[in-house]
Amino acid sequence: MQKYFISHDNLKSQIIDGDDAFHIIKVMRSRIGDEILVSDQNKTFLVKIKSFDSNKVLFEIIEEKTNITELPVFVSIFQGYPKGDKLDDIIKHGTELGVYEFYPTLMKRSVFKLEEKKKESKLLRFNKIAKEASEQSYRQYIPKVVDILDLKKIDFSNYDYKIYCYEEAAKENESANFKKIVSNLKENDKVAIVIGPEGGIDISEAEYLNKIGFIPCALGPRILRTETAIFYCMSAISYEMELKK
Amino acid sequence: MQKYFISHDNLKSQIIDGDDAFHIIKVMRSRIGDEILVSDQNKTFLVKIKSFDSNKVLFEIIEEKTNITELPVFVSIFQGYPKGDKLDDIIKHGTELGVYEFYPTLMKRSVFKLEEKKKESKLLRFNKIAKEASEQSYRQYIPKVVDILDLKKIDFSNYDYKIYCYEEAAKENESANFKKIVSNLKENDKVAIVIGPEGGIDISEAEYLNKIGFIPCALGPRILRTETAIFYCMSAISYEMELKK
Repeated sequence: MQKYFISHDNLKSQIIDGDDAFHIIKVMRSRIGDEILVSDQNKTFLVKIKSFDSNKVLFEIIEEKTNITELPVFVSIFQGYPKGDKLDDIIKHGTELGVYEFYPTLMKRSVFKLEEKKKESKLLRFNKIAKEASEQSYRQYIPKVVDILDLKKIDFSNYDYKIYCYEEAAKENESANFKKIVSNLKENDKVAIVIGPEGGIDISEAEYLNKIGFIPCALGPRILRTETAIFYCMSAISYEMELKK
Repeated sequence: MQKYFISHDNLKSQIIDGDDAFHIIKVMRSRIGDEILVSDQNKTFLVKIKSFDSNKVLFEIIEEKTNITELPVFVSIFQGYPKGDKLDDIIKHGTELGVYEFYPTLMKRSVFKLEEKKKESKLLRFNKIAKEASEQSYRQYIPKVVDILDLKKIDFSNYDYKIYCYEEAAKENESANFKKIVSNLKENDKVAIVIGPEGGIDISEAEYLNKIGFIPCALGPRILRTETAIFYCMSAISYEMELKK
């Protein structure tokens, strides 16, 4: 069943408008009486479509359907800005896997050069991808794509755990740091994960990260692409914290 | 450093030919004296380029560099045939994450219709993707994309564990089956994982899989896309078996 995030005010007024109304009317071709899920990022309700009013959908609430679908920890992903449109997939799948917030991060080996005037439109686009992926994956909360920043301009002071995925660690057979940290996570911990772009993290960046308290981690003995690294981290955290034996 | 899989005969003759020679000469623009890794899927060697001979690269061995980079279990992925070129990414990233073999699988909700005469060229293409991803991720072994088959024509008799990823299980808060199985895996176990295409596994298929001994598994409380499910499974198996606390 399709889920839509709407504002708290629209939830109170029992109205869906904007792009979501367009999606319900034109894309899904819904009819009066059809059931959908709506959420204000706090509570989720099963609702029935009552009527269509030009570009609005009016609904009535059937019952509350709030389910806990959020990871019990807050994971902030600092993703080295990759080539092409890889970031779209990273945000899409990272959202499904429970990321709390994303920072596309400009690093030494990022080929991408940010034009300041395009930043706002890029962030808008990324946040739209996160909203759609949240709806599709039944999340309670839409992760934010906060800002595009240089690695060395980011304030990392507010995290319980700080790790970076380091290919050189994998080559040296490091295989304990990541699991040690993930298996010690407690509810509501804040975790910062830095992932390099294609070509990885430069040695000067690794030294900087070490200096400010980051732990280098290998994700198994194979060398993962930048977009695979985030899937590995998030899947492992979910496996460790959300699945029971 | 770039790794190339070559035949055992070419390893003995210290020659690289075909597409790989083209890649070394034209794409990487390598020079005499450059070092690369070559493997016959059994042993891996650090070698130095000795000379170029029309479309061949001649090398000499510096030292053996065989590293254990294979998952300690054999995971066969039966991936419901998805839309578009998603299977390319699934094979690419699944290879990085250690899949042993792939079977693109025709299921009820696969939109894709197989034309028999195109099967061979599809398999060739998929196996090429697997080879390149194996080289890039430093695997010792190239996974095979074995065949494209209907779900009900596959022989599943030869596996130690058989699971299928089931969205309906996630909605019913099932959260123990996957971890119970993965945490009990032993070296050399054979695992079959069935993943539905977009739209998931049909109820009649779920009943069939239950009947032949498959266990339905949820991969956490969020609903994952078909391509995300394989990343989750493989990452969790690596995390459980390849990382140490």
